[in-house]
Amino acid sequence: MDKVITVSREFGSGGRELGVRLAEHFGIPFYDKELISMAADHADMAETAFQHYDEKLPDMHDPLDRHYYNPFSAVYKVPMSDQIFVAQSSFIRRLAEQGPCVIVGRCADRVLTDSVNLFIYAKMKDRVKRMVSLEPEADPQEMEKRIREVDRKRKDYYQYYTGAQWGRAQNYHLCVESGLVGVDGCLRAALAYLGEN
Amino acid sequence: MDKVITVSREFGSGGRELGVRLAEHFGIPFYDKELISMAADHADMAETAFQHYDEKLPDMHDPLDRHYYNPFSAVYKVPMSDQIFVAQSSFIRRLAEQGPCVIVGRCADRVLTDSVNLFIYAKMKDRVKRMVSLEPEADPQEMEKRIREVDRKRKDYYQYYTGAQWGRAQNYHLCVESGLVGVDGCLRAALAYLGEN
Repeated sequence: MDKVITVSREFGSGGRELGVRLAEHFGIPFYDKELISMAADHADMAETAFQHYDEKLPDMHDPLDRHYYNPFSAVYKVPMSDQIFVAQSSFIRRLAEQGPCVIVGRCADRVLTDSVNLFIYAKMKDRVKRMVSLEPEADPQEMEKRIREVDRKRKDYYQYYTGAQWGRAQNYHLCVESGLVGVDGCLRAALAYLGEN
Repeated sequence: MDKVITVSREFGSGGRELGVRLAEHFGIPFYDKELISMAADHADMAETAFQHYDEKLPDMHDPLDRHYYNPFSAVYKVPMSDQIFVAQSSFIRRLAEQGPCVIVGRCADRVLTDSVNLFIYAKMKDRVKRMVSLEPEADPQEMEKRIREVDRKRKDYYQYYTGAQWGRAQNYHLCVESGLVGVDGCLRAALAYLGEN
């Protein structure tokens, strides 16, 4: 593998697992939430800010984002969430320069220009089942609510920062549904697509 | 393979070739344009009508479709294109009852309820290149125009008859971009996804 692999994912469909296993297969670094503290370090900004604004849109009701809308404030001319997006994107590009890796989420498929882009998704019932098997104490109805909420945020975030449509097949090289064949089947398909085995 | 495989495709991306090779691999029947005359036979309607209305929307300027809009006509209460869609869909369901096969286009992914649905696509430049290599006398600019036109018709047709969004990853089980890895790579990915090799 001589390219960066990006994994976009519907919440609960197994994107992190697919990414980890691809990285293991190729023996290359894997970045998901790990990106947050690394990018914060790199930008010399507070990690808590990166955590708070990770994959989130500017919010007028958020005091740090609101400064943007306040013409009398000289502190922030750019909403905090936008600053974080810019810092994170520049960090993602720097990672990619260092060599092949797997990056999950954070619009990496649009931030980079020469990556191989995967999208993984599944029907709601299959995602609830998968998440409840990972968190047995979770209530399925609450889980479905959480899935819808996270998906909506990711979709809004992606569309706000990239102008592209989240989940449109043509944005990615390979899109795999994990309900029918599990993450195993998706991994097999991705490796075959990438010319492995 | 114990299921019907449907292949939706952007024009010029290699959908027919992918379908033929999948059918060969599994030793199951393949249907693309073949469906037209078979469905016409089955419905006891003229093959020319099926050809004319294949993957086309109702058109008010078409005399046979227009009857629909004429309250004094007793001949057709349903536009010809809709009649053909209904006849073709019922024929597709009948084919699926006979056992596994590969069906290209014609909304088969939505007409059937238990098929494995593939979508194949590629960037415009790669599709023009592929089509010009298959039809060396074709002019690349004219080819691009033709690709855009056929895509627009297919998209309108799909969205009109299914209410679903053409090319939305979540409508399909596996979506493959053929520009990066060719139809070969897409076939490998599809077979791996389906548990082959």
